[in-house]
Amino acid sequence: MAKILRVNMTDRTATYEDVPDKYKLLGGRGLTSTIVYDEVDPACHPLGPNNKLVFAPGLLTGTAAPTSARVSAGAKSPLTGGIKESNAGTEWPQLVARLGLKAIIVEGYPKDDGWWGLHVTKDGTKFFPAGEYVGQSLYSIFPGLFERFGKKAAIATIGIAGEHRMSMAGICYNDNSGRPSRYSGRGGLGAVMGSKHLKFIVVDGEGGPGVPVVNKELFDQGRKKLIEALNTHAITKPKGALNSYGTAVLVNILNEAGGYPTRNFREGRFEGAATTSGEAIFEGNKQRLGKELYNHACSPGCIIQCSNTWHRPDGSEHVSCVEYESTWALGANCGIPNLDDVAELIWHCNDLGIDTIETGGTIAVAMDAGLLPFGDAKGAIRLVQEEIGQATPLGRILGNGATFTGKAFGWPRVPSCKGQNMPAYEPRAVKGIGITYATSPMGADHTSGYTICPEILGVTGKIDQFAMDKADLSRAFQYTTAYMTDTTGHCLFIAFAILDIASGFEGVIDEVNGVLGTDFKVADAANLGKEIMDRELAFNRAAGFTKADDRVPEFMKYEKLPPHNVTWDVPDETLDAVFWA
Amino acid sequence: MAKILRVNMTDRTATYEDVPDKYKLLGGRGLTSTIVYDEVDPACHPLGPNNKLVFAPGLLTGTAAPTSARVSAGAKSPLTGGIKESNAGTEWPQLVARLGLKAIIVEGYPKDDGWWGLHVTKDGTKFFPAGEYVGQSLYSIFPGLFERFGKKAAIATIGIAGEHRMSMAGICYNDNSGRPSRYSGRGGLGAVMGSKHLKFIVVDGEGGPGVPVVNKELFDQGRKKLIEALNTHAITKPKGALNSYGTAVLVNILNEAGGYPTRNFREGRFEGAATTSGEAIFEGNKQRLGKELYNHACSPGCIIQCSNTWHRPDGSEHVSCVEYESTWALGANCGIPNLDDVAELIWHCNDLGIDTIETGGTIAVAMDAGLLPFGDAKGAIRLVQEEIGQATPLGRILGNGATFTGKAFGWPRVPSCKGQNMPAYEPRAVKGIGITYATSPMGADHTSGYTICPEILGVTGKIDQFAMDKADLSRAFQYTTAYMTDTTGHCLFIAFAILDIASGFEGVIDEVNGVLGTDFKVADAANLGKEIMDRELAFNRAAGFTKADDRVPEFMKYEKLPPHNVTWDVPDETLDAVFWA
Repeated sequence: MAKILRVNMTDRTATYEDVPDKYKLLGGRGLTSTIVYDEVDPACHPLGPNNKLVFAPGLLTGTAAPTSARVSAGAKSPLTGGIKESNAGTEWPQLVARLGLKAIIVEGYPKDDGWWGLHVTKDGTKFFPAGEYVGQSLYSIFPGLFERFGKKAAIATIGIAGEHRMSMAGICYNDNSGRPSRYSGRGGLGAVMGSKHLKFIVVDGEGGPGVPVVNKELFDQGRKKLIEALNTHAITKPKGALNSYGTAVLVNILNEAGGYPTRNFREGRFEGAATTSGEAIFEGNKQRLGKELYNHACSPGCIIQCSNTWHRPDGSEHVSCVEYESTWALGANCGIPNLDDVAELIWHCNDLGIDTIETGGTIAVAMDAGLLPFGDAKGAIRLVQEEIGQATPLGRILGNGATFTGKAFGWPRVPSCKGQNMPAYEPRAVKGIGITYATSPMGADHTSGYTICPEILGVTGKIDQFAMDKADLSRAFQYTTAYMTDTTGHCLFIAFAILDIASGFEGVIDEVNGVLGTDFKVADAANLGKEIMDRELAFNRAAGFTKADDRVPEFMKYEKLPPHNVTWDVPDETLDAVFWA
Repeated sequence: MAKILRVNMTDRTATYEDVPDKYKLLGGRGLTSTIVYDEVDPACHPLGPNNKLVFAPGLLTGTAAPTSARVSAGAKSPLTGGIKESNAGTEWPQLVARLGLKAIIVEGYPKDDGWWGLHVTKDGTKFFPAGEYVGQSLYSIFPGLFERFGKKAAIATIGIAGEHRMSMAGICYNDNSGRPSRYSGRGGLGAVMGSKHLKFIVVDGEGGPGVPVVNKELFDQGRKKLIEALNTHAITKPKGALNSYGTAVLVNILNEAGGYPTRNFREGRFEGAATTSGEAIFEGNKQRLGKELYNHACSPGCIIQCSNTWHRPDGSEHVSCVEYESTWALGANCGIPNLDDVAELIWHCNDLGIDTIETGGTIAVAMDAGLLPFGDAKGAIRLVQEEIGQATPLGRILGNGATFTGKAFGWPRVPSCKGQNMPAYEPRAVKGIGITYATSPMGADHTSGYTICPEILGVTGKIDQFAMDKADLSRAFQYTTAYMTDTTGHCLFIAFAILDIASGFEGVIDEVNGVLGTDFKVADAANLGKEIMDRELAFNRAAGFTKADDRVPEFMKYEKLPPHNVTWDVPDETLDAVFWA
C-alpha cells in the first residue's frame, strides 16, 4: 500500500505514514498543493520553521504512461509569498513512485549548522552528513554521488544558491545522463530546502513495489491513444518540431509575432533571434559535429524527446539543455545574441542551482538599471559565476530575483507578477498569456495556463493574439493544466497533441481511470483542476493576496512595446473575472 | 487666499492653485493623506512617474500655537507599499504656511539625469540646478546653502540615500541651528523625492501673508489653555522629564518594563540601557561640559524643548539630537552600550539622509543574520558610512531597510509590520503598541497610536501592559492622533498633557476653531481622525492590503521574549477588530 514519507529536519526522523483517503486520488500538483493547503500556515515565513516542502510524483509517474516522469515540488514560495508548485521532468519521481511513495513531506528546522542528505531505498531511509558537498559546484559533485549511491540512483538536490536561501534557487534533479540539469526551477523552492539544511534526497527505486494499476486494460488503451496522438502531431512527433529544434523552436515564431521580450521587455522583437533559435541550435550542432543531431529524452519513457545539447566549436558538449525559456532569458532578454554565451550562462545556472528564467530576468533588470550594458555577455557570466556563486552582497541581491533586484536599485521597470519574473512571452503583444501571468496563483508562469497554444500556435484553432476578452480562455487553460498535466504527471508538452486530437485527451483520462479505478470523463478534467486551484487560491487569499496582486506591472500600461506599439490595455475587470467572479 | 503649490518635475513647472473647498479644513496628515488618496493610483509603483509627494504644514503651523511646527510628508511608500505620512518638527513648514501655502504637491518624472532645487519665496518659485550638491554629505553642504539662500531660509532635502532611491531614505529639514537633523524619516519618502530628481525645496517665509486666524480671541484662549497644560505636566514642563532628559528618558522606563527590544528583538531588557539613557546623556554632558545642559527646541515656538545635543569628551558638539528611538535603534537593538558610538551612528544617518529607526533595525537584522557581531560599533559605523554612504551592493541591501535585508540574507527574524521595522517598544511585552504596529496603515509606527501612554506611563491611568483586549484602545489612540496632533500640526508630545489635563485638550480644539472658524467639539476629535484614516485604509486596501497584513511577524508567536518569557499571543480577531469590523 502506498505511503507518504514524512521527513522531520528538527530531529532528523523519516517516518512512513498511510495515505489518507482524501489524498488517494491525487498526485503531482494536486497532491502537493492540497498538502500545503492542509498543513502549512499561509501566514508563515517561507524560510522559517513552519513552512514545509512537499514532493509528489504525478498520478501516472512510474507507470508505462508515455512522457510522464514529472515531479511536483510544493511549498509556500519565498519568491512570491504564495503557494507554489514547481514541476520538473526527471527520473527521480519515477523512482519515488516505484518505492510506493505518493509524497515526501519535508518539515521542521535545523537545530545547528549541520547539513544532511537522505537516502531512500526499498529498505527504508538513512540520513547521511552532507557538509562535504556544501559550497560545491553541482557539476563537480554529481559524478561522485553516482559513484557513491550507484548509477541507478536519482538525485534531488540544491546548489549554492539554495544553501544561501536565495529566492531564485531551484531544486535540481539529474537528467538521463546524470547531469545536474532538470529543475523545479521557479519560485525559490531550493531556498526552502536550504532553510531546512537538507542538501539531498537520493532515491533508489530498485525492488520497490511499483505503482499499482487497477485496470490494466483500460490503462493500456489510454496509453496507446496518447502515444498515437503524440506520434502524429506535428509538434510532438519524432523528428517533429520539438524533437528537431527543442522548445527553442518557439524563438522565431514569437519573434515574428512581435511577442518575444527583448532587453528587459523594452521591445517585442530581437535582432539576434535567428542566431539563438532552435533552428540555430540544430544547424550549429550539425556544423560542429558534422552530422544532424536530434534531441533526447529528459527522463525515461518520454517519446517527445525535446531535450537538446549544445556543443562547442570543437564538438565537445557545452550544456544540456538549451530550452526556449533559457535561450530567451539569457539571450534576447539580456540583449545577448550568441548561443555560446547563452550556453555558458545556462551551465552556470545549472551549476549553482538557479532558475534560468529568473536569472535572465534579473540580469536584464540589472542591465536596465545601469549595472552593466545590455549585451554584455562576459559581464553577465561574471555576475552569475562570481557574484551569485560566491554569495557576495551583489550576488545576494541578484540571487533573490528580478523584483528584489529592481527594488535594490530603485528601478520600477520589473516585468514580474506576484514577485516572479515573466517568462518569454510579452503580455502586451499576447494578451491571453498576460492574463495567465497576472492571475495564476503561481506568479508570472506560462506553464500554468499556456494560452500561447491558440494565440500563437493555432492549437485548438487560432485566436487573435491582441484580442483582450480572454478571461474564460485563460481560466480554462489554467484549470485543465492543473489536472491533465500537472496532476497526472504528464509533461505539459502533451498539450499540443491532446488539445488538437480528441482521442489523445481521452487517452489520458483512460490512463488515470486505469490506474485509479475511477470513472472520470473528459468533461471532468477542468473541474478536477478547479478543485485543486480552489485550494491554491484559498491559500493565497489567506496569505494576503487580493485582486491588486492579479495585475501586470504598471510600466506596461504606459510604455508602448515595439514593433506593434501596444500597451497593456486589458481591463482590470477582465483579470478579476478569472478567479474573483 | 491660501494656495496649493503644484510642482511638476517632468517639465519643471510650479503653479499656484486655489485650495478646493474640501481641503480647506484640512492640514498636515489630514491633507497629505487626502491628496494622496485623491490623486495617486494605489497600484502605482512608488518610484515610478505616477507617485506624488505631498508636503503640508499642520492646520496650526505658522501660527502662535505652541509646539506646532510640524510638517507632514505623504506619498505611496516604497518601504511599505501603502500610504505614508511622515511627520517632522522643523521651521520649514512654518515658513511654507506663512507664504500662504496649504500644501506643496510634487509630481511628474525627470526626463534626464539632471537634479534640481526649488526656491520658494513671497515672489514666487524658481528652479535651480542642484547637480553640484548631489553625492555630498548633508553636514558639508548645509552651511553653504544658508550662505546662498540666507539665514532665514529653511531647507527640505534628501541625502545620498534618497538620491539612490533607497527605502530607508528620509526627507531632511534643518533644525534651529541649521543642522541637517530634523526628519520625515519613516517610509522612504526621501526615495520618492529622489525618484523625481528634486534635491531641495528651499523656503523663505519673509513677507508672506501668514496664516489667517478667523477668531483670534478663541485661538488665544485655546493657546493659553494648552500652554498651561504643557507647563504643568511632569513630562512636558520646563526642566521636566523631556526638557531634562529628552525623549531618551524612556530608556530606563521601558527597560524596567522588560519591553526594551534588545539585539534584534531577542530580549526585552538591555544590560547597556543605563549607559545609553536620557539620564546618561544629561550626566555625560554635565561631566564633559562642566555644567548642566537642558534641552532646546527643535523648531521655533516649541515650549517643551526636548531636543538634546551630545558632546564629545573634549566638550565639542558631537550630534543633535539623540532621540529615544535613535539611542535604542543604534544602541540596544544592535547591542551597542556606548553613547559616543550611538552619537556617531546618528551623525552618519543625518549626514546620509536616512531614518535612524530603520537603520538600527537593519543593522540589527544584519547582525542577527551573521554579517557582524552584535555590539560591533565600529562595524556598524562602517556599514552606514561606507556601504550605505557609497551605495555599494551591500549598501543597497541595507539602505532598503530591515525587511529587505532579512530577505537578502534569507533571515526570517525581521521585526517589521508592512515592511517597516518596529520602533523601540516590544509588542510581546506591551500588547497595545503591538496592536498599533500591526494595524496602523503606516506599518510598525509607535507615533500612530501611542498606547504606551496608559500601558507604561500611566497617562490617562495605568493599564496592564500584558493585557490583550486593546483593540478599542489602539483604535481610539490612532483616530485621535490622526487629528489632534498629525493634522493640527502639534507635536505628538503634547499628548501627555492634553490626555491628562482636560483643559489642554479643549485648548487644542479652541485653537483649531479659532483658526478655521469652525465649531468642533472635544468629542469630535476621534471622528475627525477617523475620516482621515478611512481614506488611508481605503488607499491601502486598493493597493492590496488585507487582514493578513495586520499582523506581527511570525517569529514573535513562537519565540519567548525574556525577561518575562512572553510570546505574541494577541488573537488575530483582536487585530481584525481594529479596522476590519
